[in-house]
Order: sequence, then C-alpha cells, then structure tokens
Amino acid sequence: MQQFLEQSKKISREIATLSGEVKNKVLNEMADALIEHSDFIVHNNSKDMQAAEQENLSLDLKDRLLLTNDRVKAMANAIRQIANLKEPVGRTLDGWVTENGLNIQKVSIPIGVIGIIYESRPNVTSDTAALCFKSGNVCILKGGKEAQHSNKAIADILRNVLAVNKLPEQAISLLPNSTRQGVAEFIKQDKYVDLLVPRGGEALIKFISQNATIPVVKHDKGLCHTYIDKFADGKKAIEIAINAKCQRPGVCNSMETLLVHKDVANYVLPPLHENFMSKNTQLRGCEETVEYIDIPLATQEDFDTEYLANILSIKVVKDVSDAISHINKHGSGHSECIISENYSVVNKFLNEVDAACVYANASTRFTDGGAFGLGAEVGISTNKLHSRGPMGINDLTTFKYKIYGNGQIR
Amino acid sequence: MQQFLEQSKKISREIATLSGEVKNKVLNEMADALIEHSDFIVHNNSKDMQAAEQENLSLDLKDRLLLTNDRVKAMANAIRQIANLKEPVGRTLDGWVTENGLNIQKVSIPIGVIGIIYESRPNVTSDTAALCFKSGNVCILKGGKEAQHSNKAIADILRNVLAVNKLPEQAISLLPNSTRQGVAEFIKQDKYVDLLVPRGGEALIKFISQNATIPVVKHDKGLCHTYIDKFADGKKAIEIAINAKCQRPGVCNSMETLLVHKDVANYVLPPLHENFMSKNTQLRGCEETVEYIDIPLATQEDFDTEYLANILSIKVVKDVSDAISHINKHGSGHSECIISENYSVVNKFLNEVDAACVYANASTRFTDGGAFGLGAEVGISTNKLHSRGPMGINDLTTFKYKIYGNGQIR
Repeated sequence: MQQFLEQSKKISREIATLSGEVKNKVLNEMADALIEHSDFIVHNNSKDMQAAEQENLSLDLKDRLLLTNDRVKAMANAIRQIANLKEPVGRTLDGWVTENGLNIQKVSIPIGVIGIIYESRPNVTSDTAALCFKSGNVCILKGGKEAQHSNKAIADILRNVLAVNKLPEQAISLLPNSTRQGVAEFIKQDKYVDLLVPRGGEALIKFISQNATIPVVKHDKGLCHTYIDKFADGKKAIEIAINAKCQRPGVCNSMETLLVHKDVANYVLPPLHENFMSKNTQLRGCEETVEYIDIPLATQEDFDTEYLANILSIKVVKDVSDAISHINKHGSGHSECIISENYSVVNKFLNEVDAACVYANASTRFTDGGAFGLGAEVGISTNKLHSRGPMGINDLTTFKYKIYGNGQIR
Repeated sequence: MQQFLEQSKKISREIATLSGEVKNKVLNEMADALIEHSDFIVHNNSKDMQAAEQENLSLDLKDRLLLTNDRVKAMANAIRQIANLKEPVGRTLDGWVTENGLNIQKVSIPIGVIGIIYESRPNVTSDTAALCFKSGNVCILKGGKEAQHSNKAIADILRNVLAVNKLPEQAISLLPNSTRQGVAEFIKQDKYVDLLVPRGGEALIKFISQNATIPVVKHDKGLCHTYIDKFADGKKAIEIAINAKCQRPGVCNSMETLLVHKDVANYVLPPLHENFMSKNTQLRGCEETVEYIDIPLATQEDFDTEYLANILSIKVVKDVSDAISHINKHGSGHSECIISENYSVVNKFLNEVDAACVYANASTRFTDGGAFGLGAEVGISTNKLHSRGPMGINDLTTFKYKIYGNGQIR
C-alpha cells in the first residue's frame, strides 16, 4: 500500500500540470473506448448481476447495479460532457498588488490525490475518474464489492487509454486492498492522500468520518424541510410540497418534514392531504396537525428520520422563527425551503436557516450539480468545509498563491 | 462539556446574524476595555511570569509570555484594526440564474463554532477572539497553561463587554476543561464544533491531527527553500537569500535550505558565504557545495530539518527541475522561492512547486497576513484544504447557497 500511494503522490504532480488540450483529448478517447468495449463491460457486469441474484439483493439495488449498452453510452456521454467543462485548473481566484509591489495571484490548482469510496452504481467509476482527471487529480477508487467486476472492467478501459497516451495508468486506480482492513488503513494515509469523498450508507460514512486522518467531504443524509408560511401562495405551496416529497422520494434532496404556519393550517392542510393521498404518501402529523386532517400521530422520532420513502411527517408551527428553530434542530443542513410571498419573512428564513441550500419558493429537489448548472457532480457535500452543497468540478481544486516580486526583502 | 458545547452551537446562530454595525461597536468597546483594565491584565500576567520564573522557562518563552501596558495597547489596536476590516459575512461569492429561472446566490457565512488551540503568547487570545467575533463565529479558546492567568483576565474583559451589550458571553469562551483529557474529548465533538485551528509545536499539532474528528486547519512547520537559478540576478539573489534566512530565523517562513544552480555555484557561493559569515549563520553544504566554500558537510537529515535558528543547509542542483524535485520531496508546502530573470523558468517553478506560497524574486518572509494585506491573521495554514497560506478573516467563513425561485418544481 505504502509504495502504491507514494507512487500515486508522485504521479499527481505530473497529472496536475497537463494542459486542458491533452486532458480533453484523453477524455474523449475514454468515451470512445467505453463504447467500443461496451460488450466487454456488459459481460463483466453480468458476473456482478449473477452474484447479486445469488445474494438476493433487492430489485432496487439490482437496478442500480445493472449496465446495458445504453447505460454504457450514457456513461460515455457523461465523460464527453466533462471534457466540455471549462478548464478548472489555473483560474485566477483573486489577485492584488501589495504596497511594496508584490503582485499576489490566488490561483486554482488540483487537490492532488483523491480517494473516492462509494457503493453500487458502476457509472460512478467512470464519472468520478473523469471528473478527477479533468481537474488534474489522481483518483483512487474504492467501489462496492457487489460491483467489483463492472468497476474493474471500466477502470481497465480508462487506464488503457492513459497508457496509449503515454500517461501513467495509476492516475486512475482501484484501491489495491479493498477489504475493510485495507480501507481502514487507507483512510489514515494523510501523507499521500489529500481528500476522501465517501458516498454511501450512514454506517460507511460514520466509519470514515470517525477514523480518517485525511480531510473528508461527506455525501451524507438529507433531512430536508419545506415550510409553508402564513404569507404563502397556496397554489405554489401545494405544487412545491408535492414535488419535493413525491417526485423521487428515495433521494437525499426530497422533503421529509413539512412545516405549516398555524394561521393557514386550516386552509392548506386539507387540500395537501387530498393531493398526498392521490400520490399514496403516508402522512404522520403532530398533535395540532391531526386536528385538521385525519392522519396518524407522529412520534418524536419521526421528526428526526430521513425516510427516503414516500412517507412525510407534518408539524404546525407558530411562525417563521419557530420553523427556523425546528429546522436548525432537526435538519441535516442539506436543503431547506420556505414558501412565502413576504419579503422580510423570506429573507429571515434564508439568512437564519443553517443549511447548504436554502430555497424560497422552489422545490428542494433542485439541489444537485446538474440542476445547479455545475455539470457532472462529485456528490452533494453535507460538510460545512471544504465544500458545501452540490460539488462541481471546481470543488476538486484548491489554490496556491503565486507571488511575483522584483527583489523585495523584508 | 456536552451541555456547554450545545449552548455554544445555539449561540453561534445568534452571533452569525449580528450586523456589522453591532459587531464593530462591540469590538471598539473591547479595545477600550482592554486599555481601561490594562493594569488588571498586567497584574494577572505577573502571576504567569512568576510561575515561568519558578519553572525556569527560557528567556525567549518568557518574552513571549510577558505583557506590559504597551503590549496591551498593541492588543487593543489590533482589535480596532479588525473592526475596520471589510465585513466578511454576506459577501456574494458567485451567482447565476439557471435555465428554469432559479436565481442562485453563493454567499459567505460564518463557519459556526471554532476551537483555537495555542501556546504561549496571550495576545493570541484577544486577536483570535476578535477575528472570530468579527466573522460571526463563536470561539472556544484553549491557551497554554503557562499563560492561564493572562488569558483568563483578557477573556473576562472581552466577555464583560459582550454582557454589557446584551450579547451571550459564551460567544468568547475558554475551554472549560483544559486538561489533556479535556482536549482529547473536545477535539472529537464534531456535532458541535465546526473547525479546529491548532497553533503550536509539532507534538500538539500531530496529536490533534491524528485524533480530531472535527476538520482541522493546521498552522504547522515551514521548511522553506530559496532556489538561485542559472539566470538569477546576482545582487537580488544575495539580498533575498540573506533576508530569507537572517531577518528572523525563528519563524516558519524563513529559509532553511538554499538551492543553487550548478552553473552559477562558482560565482554565487563565495559572496554568499561571506555575507552569511557576517550574520553569524551556520552553514552546512552538500558534497558539491563544499568544493566551492569551506563549510561543514551537511547530513541527509539536514535537508529535512526545520532549524528555526540561524542555520542553513546548501545544496547544488542540476537545474530548475532538480530544484523542483528536491522541494517537492523535502519541503513542507509552506513558502518556496526562485530567483531568476528567465520567464519560462520562473513560470515552470511557480507552476510545478507544490506549496501554499510560491515566490519569484522576493523573500519568503512575506508569507503572513499582514504582509499580504489581509489584515490580522488567524494563522498560516499548511493544509491544502479548507484554507491555505496566510489565513485572513475571510478564511473564517464558509458559504451557503440562497436559491430564489418563483414556484419551480422538478
């Protein structure tokens, strides 16, 4: 492991200085290669699918795992889109001249060596490899055991393109020892690895956060709220609430708890109830909620639960301050929304809610790199540092100061 | 501890939304209060000085610890300067409108609760408390035992100003349990504390980096190089090299190793030798260096040592690539300098050296917040993430996305 990582670090200096021209040529060739070897990928994926069958994985998990020629085409297209992104390295982030004439330039540079730890979907392998390469980083990928043959096939194809271009294959690697012990050792190699991005279940993320000595950007849970204010537009309120919960209940930016101002609960809850019934959403309400609509009583636990399912807890609150307090106490700092036409109330909510993304009058479902217009996404950070919210390619860079002098001494 | 930190977290939401007007008024009153109670501070400092005497601390350490009325005045002035800095919270860092009309604003916000762990100098207490307050953060300070009476006196005065202004005193706190065990517990409270900034010796920083579950921005060692290129201006080379080593040898941005291009070693080393002799610098050279000047041979260890003293190791290198390799292998990623008049060589060096600050033709001694024009500094980060190099007040902020919609659903 030590030797492998030392080499990764060394290679990262070479990859960091590649021109955009070279990187984009290689990325487009990677896309071509995936399509050319589509059958090879699908064949290897079928080994994972067989194992999944034997281990009785859920239909949902099997669907995530499955690769078809069409899905490989989509992976290739994603790489081409990444090649088209604006060059992330070498952007001037700030710059000024000091009194004594030092010209200081703050410039974006690659982070170095990035470890990505993820589960299930094999397309993450090609997406993140391409994102890391485009941003001048070396990546070390640790996918799930259930996708091992698929991931290896994809990585082999990408690495071969690197080799053909006389670039070090190790710029894109699978973690050599991907046992639990291997991972435990890996996440302490802060001498060689600059950033870890874990994407996956709560247990995985907790294990890494608690044990890593490398900086971690988590892609953690989303316990998102929508608050319908006294001054909400009723039509928007219902449309947004339904969308935030039902459009795709199993994802991190969907709503888990709906908060309703007490003065409008009477008007808003009955039509909401009707709409959610038509979507088969299971509702659970606080004591005040159940006075207005006939649904089961929520437990205290409900308000701390990320259902990731078509279930919603509802709470009546006194006012916007009460809503903010509830969110700051129970939310996960992911995406939070207010529905209101009142200028000051909206501003108060956006300022005081502590979350990566705070929305006025729009569905929380927009929290992702694509919807934000950032292009392909590395993940959605629930960290407060180093990046936050949808992570685009620029979030895979850090910076250095270049200082141009002409003999200055102190 | 749990209860105290829970309260800190809660308070951080209140402090985060204070206006610049209120913060600056309070900061100026803090400066006034320090001066008003200068004798009280000096009196408490004398208790620490007595203990230092009994424990036979070095003259240098005692000087760092000592507070006089003049030094208290300097602390007050530093707070006034911090009050004068541009408001760090609420800056629009980026902003755009998506195709479907979402107006996305990326806005700077306070980090939340920040733990600062430091040694010796009591002025760090007032400096960092003021920086954290100005940037809307709650700070929890853990100073050295040797400065305990001074730190408590300073904190008490600042907290009293908070109380007079009806603000929560706990916005500026000393860590309640500052034993080693208390610190070990504290650095794992990632639920309540958002960032740790350790400033101090290598053992302290290592302990925190290895054991914290809270993100850490280190203020670590500086093993800085200056490289005199074949195309260097001889006069600049000598002036900058002498300044980088001798102006203040005990600090992190001073030079520890000088690299010299083989083609100019013959011309540059003898006058450098003479100049360093006049500054009483102890020189140690590689095998090639000692062919030109009469100094002891350096060991391999020398090139990995941060002397923090008037000692310098010298190495002759083949060319700029050799210099870059040496620096990337032995440097600490702090501050590195090239002296050269050649355009392409300078660019190569600035691009390929992996360090927070890379200089062309200027002394590495300029790596600090003041010299950079950032105002008072939190520290000099040797992290690659979340901040890097001199940390000004803006480095005590993170960001959120505010998304202004008008009914968008997905």
